[in-house]
Amino acid sequence: MTPSIDPNGYPTSPAGFKAGAAYAGIKTYGEGKLDLAILASDQPCTVAATFTRNRLHSASVDVNRAHVAGNRAQAVVVNSGIANSSTGQRGLNDARQMTEWTAARLGIQDADVLVCSTGVIGHFLPMQQIGAGIDSITLDSGGGEAFARAIMTTDTRPKHGSVRFGPYTLGGATKGSGMIHPNMATMLAFLTTDAPVEPAFLQSALSAVVDRSFNLLSIDGDTSPSDTVLLFANGAAGGGTITADSPLAAEFVEALESLCVYLAKEMARDGEGATKLIEFTVRGAASVNDARTLVRLLSTSYLLKSAVHGADPNWGRVIAVAGRSGVVMSEPGVTASICGIRVFEGECPTEFDASAVAAAMRGDTVTIDVDLGVGSSEATGWGCDLSADYVSINADYHT
Amino acid sequence: MTPSIDPNGYPTSPAGFKAGAAYAGIKTYGEGKLDLAILASDQPCTVAATFTRNRLHSASVDVNRAHVAGNRAQAVVVNSGIANSSTGQRGLNDARQMTEWTAARLGIQDADVLVCSTGVIGHFLPMQQIGAGIDSITLDSGGGEAFARAIMTTDTRPKHGSVRFGPYTLGGATKGSGMIHPNMATMLAFLTTDAPVEPAFLQSALSAVVDRSFNLLSIDGDTSPSDTVLLFANGAAGGGTITADSPLAAEFVEALESLCVYLAKEMARDGEGATKLIEFTVRGAASVNDARTLVRLLSTSYLLKSAVHGADPNWGRVIAVAGRSGVVMSEPGVTASICGIRVFEGECPTEFDASAVAAAMRGDTVTIDVDLGVGSSEATGWGCDLSADYVSINADYHT
Repeated sequence: MTPSIDPNGYPTSPAGFKAGAAYAGIKTYGEGKLDLAILASDQPCTVAATFTRNRLHSASVDVNRAHVAGNRAQAVVVNSGIANSSTGQRGLNDARQMTEWTAARLGIQDADVLVCSTGVIGHFLPMQQIGAGIDSITLDSGGGEAFARAIMTTDTRPKHGSVRFGPYTLGGATKGSGMIHPNMATMLAFLTTDAPVEPAFLQSALSAVVDRSFNLLSIDGDTSPSDTVLLFANGAAGGGTITADSPLAAEFVEALESLCVYLAKEMARDGEGATKLIEFTVRGAASVNDARTLVRLLSTSYLLKSAVHGADPNWGRVIAVAGRSGVVMSEPGVTASICGIRVFEGECPTEFDASAVAAAMRGDTVTIDVDLGVGSSEATGWGCDLSADYVSINADYHT
Repeated sequence: MTPSIDPNGYPTSPAGFKAGAAYAGIKTYGEGKLDLAILASDQPCTVAATFTRNRLHSASVDVNRAHVAGNRAQAVVVNSGIANSSTGQRGLNDARQMTEWTAARLGIQDADVLVCSTGVIGHFLPMQQIGAGIDSITLDSGGGEAFARAIMTTDTRPKHGSVRFGPYTLGGATKGSGMIHPNMATMLAFLTTDAPVEPAFLQSALSAVVDRSFNLLSIDGDTSPSDTVLLFANGAAGGGTITADSPLAAEFVEALESLCVYLAKEMARDGEGATKLIEFTVRGAASVNDARTLVRLLSTSYLLKSAVHGADPNWGRVIAVAGRSGVVMSEPGVTASICGIRVFEGECPTEFDASAVAAAMRGDTVTIDVDLGVGSSEATGWGCDLSADYVSINADYHT
């Protein structure tokens, strides 16, 4: 049974986490919105992290890589509006400065503070305003909502949730979703738990779950220089340390996966210009890698995303992507379904009722299922439709 | 010096080639437009071909693979409107039938006729109308224009040209460009020459040139089950057979490349919803493969294509693609230019005049140049901008 998500949960839902936010004047759009936030634990946490693989990454990623090396952290400071990416040595100094100011404000060590920046590439941070902003932030356990709002750029709504496992709570907030402030694609996710978790297991669980959730999400196929997922475990709810061999280990991973999948779907639904969520499932694959490869290709097809936008049961576009994917398949065994209705099998279209499929596709979620007919591996991933709004969001804005 | 293209040239420009076309009633849209065509040589030709690598390819590709096995052909019959793809055994029979009827009409052998179909996937061809259409077609040396029009689907204009090398002519026509009749991406190119060319050299020259031209073209990143490039050499202009060691070999390859690049750019300009051509050049790469990989990624980026549409000098999107590409680069050595203006170097944006770059981007051609700073390999490829029209062409049409 999939653990049930509380959509009103936040990173401050687990015991011992507080947050707060301010408007520091970094965002030049959406004047007056929150753009600076701090999330902190009352006590040092075990931390796990995954970062962008983009070679040309942002300064904050360099700082965070160093600070999480000991698997320990206590807080993260985040700004939206400017990504502090492609800003050279000055950008690196600014990112470090943000951790120092936040550490001073909280009375903790610099190395226990992480930093994330999201927004326009190639601009320098307004450090004076950030300094004043950090000083003005007050943290409390109800601050999760402000935190989730302050990390938004072109997001249209905050994305957050929590889930229970055993006696513990796992909470999170994320931002998407597309190229965000129309200058870079960037996703950030901040996850917290009050469970005590052994560092190596926390990292291996996070890495595995990210591969099954955020790494199977695509809005537009562009990975960002800032992508970051952080998971803080402060142990505030007590109990013995959870390791890979603990009775609670499987339940913890299941809860983490269910929260990350929930947040990934929320990001897809709020993709730039998106009007619906698409869930892609590939079964019958020779390997999980093959299944994931095809999920990723399907979720980035301009043609398929356009067809879904128009509620067009265009199975030919699904088959064309499968054919070019390079994954192992049995041509006669390949089947495809749209919204649960089989549309292709035995190398030919079925005699499906096109108007019934089109009607189902007009809902807020469209499922695309492909069976490759060769194995037992599978993967599920998420994307969104491609609308004219996507183009205008990304074309009509000028840097 | 690049050979100069005659934009009024056709596949019938080389000596000994004739063509003709008819409306057979296959296209249900654009009523009354030409949708069936034959291109034939007066004498058997040496033929070279490249086909889609899509596993789920169309019936015509199977027939053509068998018919070109002996490197000999004399004619090709083409229909637009229906792709005859994902149509199983019946589709294969129909494709063979088209070659038989055309062979009978021309008084030549079945195996010397090739067949191409482009349009909607998963529909059967109306064979009775095709039979009547083939019987009604009259071939003549001025038929190139009708041929170039009959192979169009959602193309807005015919795409054709010719070029001279030594005493010979090379002509061609192609269709693009995007998902064509909004059900499948498909490109077809028909190239002819009156030079006598040795079969193995003809094929190796075509394969190499296709890698440097059509294979570096992207409208939307989706490869089609029908992509086909055919090159017929009938030797009608006389002279000794051109081999890899002939004095004319280099000139032939240069002419072929210049024609294929011209046609590829024409296809990009006429991409679905496109308002401009984008030419991507990657230099300083460790290998040609790296340079081509990055060209392909740049040309398929939703974000970069949207930015170009809006004439937004958004260099961050170029750098973000380079960073995620996985190709070898020297971060401090990476540079990027838009329309010839350097916008990024030394890990930071230059102090470029954004309004000057934006003004240049409002022209009908935008160039994007990236230097990876590690080697001497390079590649150039082509794409087009992403417009709201692309979405409506592909979303608002219903299968």
